[in-house]
Amino acid sequence: MKFCSNCGNGDLEYIIPEGDHKHRYYCPNCDTIHYQNPRIIAGCVPMYEGKVLLAKRAIEPRYGFWNLPAGFLENGESPEDGALRELFEETGAKGEVNRLHTVFSLPNFNQVYLLFLVDLTSEEYEATTSESLEVRFFELDEIPWKEIAFESSTFALESYIASPSKEKVNLGQFVKY
Amino acid sequence: MKFCSNCGNGDLEYIIPEGDHKHRYYCPNCDTIHYQNPRIIAGCVPMYEGKVLLAKRAIEPRYGFWNLPAGFLENGESPEDGALRELFEETGAKGEVNRLHTVFSLPNFNQVYLLFLVDLTSEEYEATTSESLEVRFFELDEIPWKEIAFESSTFALESYIASPSKEKVNLGQFVKY
Ligand SMILES: [Zn+2]
Ligand SMILES: [Zn+2]
Repeated sequence: MKFCSNCGNGDLEYIIPEGDHKHRYYCPNCDTIHYQNPRIIAGCVPMYEGKVLLAKRAIEPRYGFWNLPAGFLENGESPEDGALRELFEETGAKGEVNRLHTVFSLPNFNQVYLLFLVDLTSEEYEATTSESLEVRFFELDEIPWKEIAFESSTFALESYIASPSKEKVNLGQFVKY
Repeated sequence: MKFCSNCGNGDLEYIIPEGDHKHRYYCPNCDTIHYQNPRIIAGCVPMYEGKVLLAKRAIEPRYGFWNLPAGFLENGESPEDGALRELFEETGAKGEVNRLHTVFSLPNFNQVYLLFLVDLTSEEYEATTSESLEVRFFELDEIPWKEIAFESSTFALESYIASPSKEKVNLGQFVKY
């Protein structure tokens, strides 16, 4: 943050406000504290008859790598709705939320993944979309582990395979030291 | 958002960028799209020997109402860490995360609550804190339902009472029509 989004002032201070415990951007011109918070990535583990639907990324970062359908949650959306929207945008498939499956956080990147187990309502999907170079089902013993885009997907897929019917959410974390 | 936080320009446009599906604030001066996303509120259902620890809010909104300990997740924090931090700040109590208990979203307010079931490590807490007028344990049959601050707390407490050992996350939502 370089300029105050409220008044346009370019002389922001980076201070710990009174009664607070963290540094914040503060605008002395309009007396506004600018809080910055982690973002939610909503996504899913889309299953159909024991197979998982993955999408090969057509965008950076990790262009060309396979991933669970997921993307930034939008204002006005619930995480469940966001997960189903991303599923449809990236794969053309539709489904129903079974349960929340994985919460995977990346504190150093200010991101929290909420990944839902989704039962696909049919085997239909699009082989390519504007966001995916390729879409296809994988049997659980043929997942391309070395070509998975993100740790969040690897963690959720490993958790699912270890215990497909476990109802407790899997809590995972990636910390960069 | 009135001014670009990147260059200070006050002539922002509110447009649907190419390839997008939602209106965004766009700065034509520095070619920046400003995304706005929901915020996470991390909190807990803090239990000790069948009793739940609630805090009476010393801040607006809902000053003087009882609530589960919860607050905005900070950058650099996992939701689990945020929940335990808020627990300590609001009640002085410490505990361990048992599991994720409730995900309650308010799409119209761009908020998502992540509430963890927390096993308190002792019966100790502070009777008042800078954020709480009063802190105390409640038996589950004496919860002051009409004095609970937020729907998220009511939903989580009702879900807990209905099924204390249920491992599946309770998914709730408040939609303003
Ligand atoms: Zn300002
Ligand atoms: Zn700009």
